[in-house]
This record gives sequence, structure tokens and C-alpha cells, in this order.
Amino acid sequence: MLALVCDQPPRLVTDHPEPVRAPGEALIAVHVAGICDTDLQLARGYMGYRGVLGHEWVGHVIEADDRSWIGRRVVADINAGCGACDECRFHLGHHCASRTVLGIVGRDGALAERLVMPLRCLVPVPDRVSDAHAVFAEPIAAALHVLDDVPASADPVVVLGDGKLGLLIALTLHGAGRRVLLVGHHRDKLERAAAVGIDTRLEHELDAQLVQTQAVVEATGHATGIARALSMLSPRGTLILKTTVAGPTSVDLSPIVIHELRVVGSRCGDMSRAMAWLAQGNVDLSSLIGARYPLSQAVTAFEHAARKGVLKVLVEG
Amino acid sequence: MLALVCDQPPRLVTDHPEPVRAPGEALIAVHVAGICDTDLQLARGYMGYRGVLGHEWVGHVIEADDRSWIGRRVVADINAGCGACDECRFHLGHHCASRTVLGIVGRDGALAERLVMPLRCLVPVPDRVSDAHAVFAEPIAAALHVLDDVPASADPVVVLGDGKLGLLIALTLHGAGRRVLLVGHHRDKLERAAAVGIDTRLEHELDAQLVQTQAVVEATGHATGIARALSMLSPRGTLILKTTVAGPTSVDLSPIVIHELRVVGSRCGDMSRAMAWLAQGNVDLSSLIGARYPLSQAVTAFEHAARKGVLKVLVEG
Repeated sequence: MLALVCDQPPRLVTDHPEPVRAPGEALIAVHVAGICDTDLQLARGYMGYRGVLGHEWVGHVIEADDRSWIGRRVVADINAGCGACDECRFHLGHHCASRTVLGIVGRDGALAERLVMPLRCLVPVPDRVSDAHAVFAEPIAAALHVLDDVPASADPVVVLGDGKLGLLIALTLHGAGRRVLLVGHHRDKLERAAAVGIDTRLEHELDAQLVQTQAVVEATGHATGIARALSMLSPRGTLILKTTVAGPTSVDLSPIVIHELRVVGSRCGDMSRAMAWLAQGNVDLSSLIGARYPLSQAVTAFEHAARKGVLKVLVEG
Repeated sequence: MLALVCDQPPRLVTDHPEPVRAPGEALIAVHVAGICDTDLQLARGYMGYRGVLGHEWVGHVIEADDRSWIGRRVVADINAGCGACDECRFHLGHHCASRTVLGIVGRDGALAERLVMPLRCLVPVPDRVSDAHAVFAEPIAAALHVLDDVPASADPVVVLGDGKLGLLIALTLHGAGRRVLLVGHHRDKLERAAAVGIDTRLEHELDAQLVQTQAVVEATGHATGIARALSMLSPRGTLILKTTVAGPTSVDLSPIVIHELRVVGSRCGDMSRAMAWLAQGNVDLSSLIGARYPLSQAVTAFEHAARKGVLKVLVEG
């Protein structure tokens, strides 16, 4: 089958082996997959991953032991845990020590015609949620997960970074009734957020000393974002780290002690929660789509996604 | 009066002006003061402080508007907040924006014959607590404050650093019924902790990958301690930062996101809580005293305290 394989740069393979469905797993035909910044990092060597790329997708079940799944439109939690440990039983397996992660750790991903995932990871997509919206479920789950760590007292919640994830975080926080200040580099992206009523600021126009708040979400993916975030927090404030900066970062951590700040890492969220949010249909995500390509042009799609300031690039199976 | 003034190196001044008592403040004669690592850092230029050093002490009240205080033995919260803001009303003023901090920010400290502090900061010392124990109230308050952030599930709680603060943290956690693993460089200090039943390990004998826990307290004051602490935390674990590393630190922060860790800064604690702990008399702190000097030899005392691996150096008025 066709598949985009992680390499430097990624390669489109036309005869990639069909994924083999283990007991308890579903074979899924991918309809649409999205390219995210983690994919770009993986293609630069992050995590040493060498399989099929892609972990944002929507598709339908072709084969499963439980035949009631067949034909259903689904997304899935990308963390495929062992299903038996406490992590899996109580925490969705997001930190299961023996987990595979779709398109990231030990499990071929969604930039292919087909993939396999455990049935217990699948989340059905309601008819009223289109493929073009459902493909955002994974980053929306990650964005909604921010809400779990934002203190009730934070007003505004500052989101640093107007990339794809930063925009989604701003939208979901705003949708949850929080006052948000989105800070970024891209006038056009900030305008998309402003259009739904989110306060926005260009980074170079921000006086961090004048905006002091109880919560900052760091979604820039740059070391400078962490220092800026720390400078904007009032005592006992919370910094929510959403994006990883691979390798050593040079940053003055003393404000964490002096102001007794909290720094909280935040990764994947709950896909069922994301699907419920999408089913409400409150936000038109089509304005977040930058381009669409067929899977046969996945390499071009990937190059497009790697350009600075590009919105979500989708690949259609 | 005699006073040790912050400079590089600190200077003993024989004719330092008497502290002037403002309304609501007490004039206090210092009995004993301790030298802590923060004092050593201040004397290297940290915070740009230029007054009298010292913030660990016990003394008695000489003058106060409320004459019932006169003659009472006291310690004090070192943060002298405005007394009126929400920070002061609900949080002991530890982050009051207009606070002074004894011997650290805008208020002459305790390595002198006399000092002044607001009455509302004072905590009486019960008769059964000796000066040699009461002088530890400030670092013990800071150590007890760690308990506020240690998750209930953490077993053991790992304390990195067997310096003065690390030892006190290990002692107070142990006293609170937590299983503690103290990791340090100094065989003699670790033996003091082991003598009361605390598990200890020399740092170079520790395989951080094999000790995975839900809570690590960083009290080494070195950048390497942060990286080591992050490597010892299991998913969703908590790193409690007790010691500041001035200036930029180069550290890989990606484990915070990948493992969804929490990093919590922890500074001053509640002095009343510390005094209640001291009044229980469960721990003999005399083994933590490295040397005693008269105030007239404060410079020598300071030099002694700056040597590697030295226990608490006390200065007696």
C-alpha cells in the first residue's frame, strides 16, 4: 500500500507491507490524515522513529473481531497501552510503560492507506461530525487537556504561540468560557482567533511585565517561549508546557522558586472528550485548514506543512 | 552597633546605625543567628542586596508599641509584607509585591546586635525550645513547606542534596511519616540522616533509572540536580524545587511534557508551624551545628560557612 515513511526527508513508499491486525485490533481504512509539528520533528530525527508517519486521522473500520465495528467511522487514542496495567485502567494508558504510539513509537501511523489500532482505543465519529472536522480530534483532545491544569483564578489565560496547536488551545479555552489572550507572530492567524472574540497580541507588541497572570500556556515550541512565560506569571501561577523543545534548553529557572510557580507538562488528551466537543459544532474548523493533498502527493504535502506559518495540511486517502 | 554587611566579601561594621523602629514594629536583640547558603549567594551579588546579612535567628523583644511583647523570646517570618493586600491577608505576605525580606530585600538582617520586624511577623518561642533549636525555625519552616506539595502517593520521597536544607527536609519528611531516600555527596552527613532511620545513598552509587518515584525534592543548588531529578520521576510525578540556581541553566525540559511532570517552586514556609514542630522536640538538631562564633568574629564565621560540606554555622550576639 501507499505510505509516507519517516526518514530524512520522509519517503513515499508504494509497496509498504499491509498492517497486520493482532487479536483485539481493528484494521482501518484512513480517509484523511493531518500533518502536525511533531511529524516534522520526527522527520528531523526526534525519538529515532522509523515507521509510517501520521497520528491525526479519521477513517472507517474494515476488519475487527467484534463485527459491530465494521463500517463505523472512527478516530482513536494514539496511545496503545497494554490494557492491563494501572496506567491503562485508570489513565487511558497515556503513560503505559509498554505502550506503542501511533506514528510515533513502535506503531505505523496514519499517512497510509490503512492502519491497525486496538479496538479499546477507538472512538466512534457521530454522523454530524465531518471528516474534515474529525481529523482534528487528536489535537483538540490535547488542547482540551489544558483545561485540566488551568487554575480557576487565571484571568486571562495567556496562550503563547499562534501555531496550529496554539490556535486550537485558544479556541477550546475560549469555548470553555475562559478569557484568553493569544500571543503570536502571524497577523493572519491572530485575526482568525480575533474573529471569534479572542484577545490577541503580536509578540513584539507585548510588554510581558505589564501582563501578569495566573496561567500561561506555552505552545511556541521555542526555548524563548519558556522564559517569556515565566516572566508573565504572578506568584503561584501555572505554566502549562504543551510543546517539547528537543535537547537542552538554556533558561533561568530561579523565578520558579522565587515566585513559587508551577510548571505542568501536558500532552495527549481524552479523544472521547474531543469528539463530544466536535459534536457540539460550535467552531468552524475549516478556517484552520491550509491545504489538502492526495496521499500520492504526501511528500509535497509534508514539504508544504514544513513552511513557516502554514495552517493544517491534510492528506486524503 | 556591630553588624555584618553584605559586600564582596562581607564586612564587619562596628558603628552600623541602630535600626529605627517604625510604628507596628518591634526592636529585637538578637541572641543567635545562622548562616545559610542564601547568605553566601547574596555575598556573591545575588539579588544585588547591600544591607546587613542574616535571616535565621532568635532573639527577644526590647521595644514595641504593645508592651506585652517586651522581653519575649521570638523568631519571625522573614517576609514583611504590607499587611493589607490579599497576599498578606491570605498567604502570610510571602509574595506581597511591596514586601521587604529580612536580610535579603530592603531590610537589614540578623547578623547584627539588633533588628526590627513588624509585630505581625513575630512568633513567640516556647520556653522548652532552646535558642540553639529556635534558630533553625526559618529553614525548618521552609523544609515543612515541602510537605504541602509532595503527592500522597510518593514512596519514597527522594531528596537530592545533603546540604543543610536537604538534611532538614529529609528530617521533617521522615518525621511526618514519609519514607525518604536522601541522596548526597557527604558520607558524614548521610550518616546523620541514617542514624534516625532515613534511607541514604551516595550520589555516585545511585542508578537514577532504577529509582523511579512520584516525588523528588531538589535541594542541591546545582543545575545537574534538576536533570537528575527529572530522570527519577515516574509519569505525572512532582519535582519540588527548593534551591535557586542563579542565571541560565541548561537542561532538557522535554521529560516534563513527555511524562506530564509537575515542577513546583517552594520557598518560605509558615514559622508558627515550624515552632510547633520544634516544640514537639522529636529531633535533636545539635548534630546539625557545625560551629559557633561570637558576632565579633562574624567574618571568620562566614568564611567557615562558605567551606564545602560544612554544617550550620551559628553566630552568637
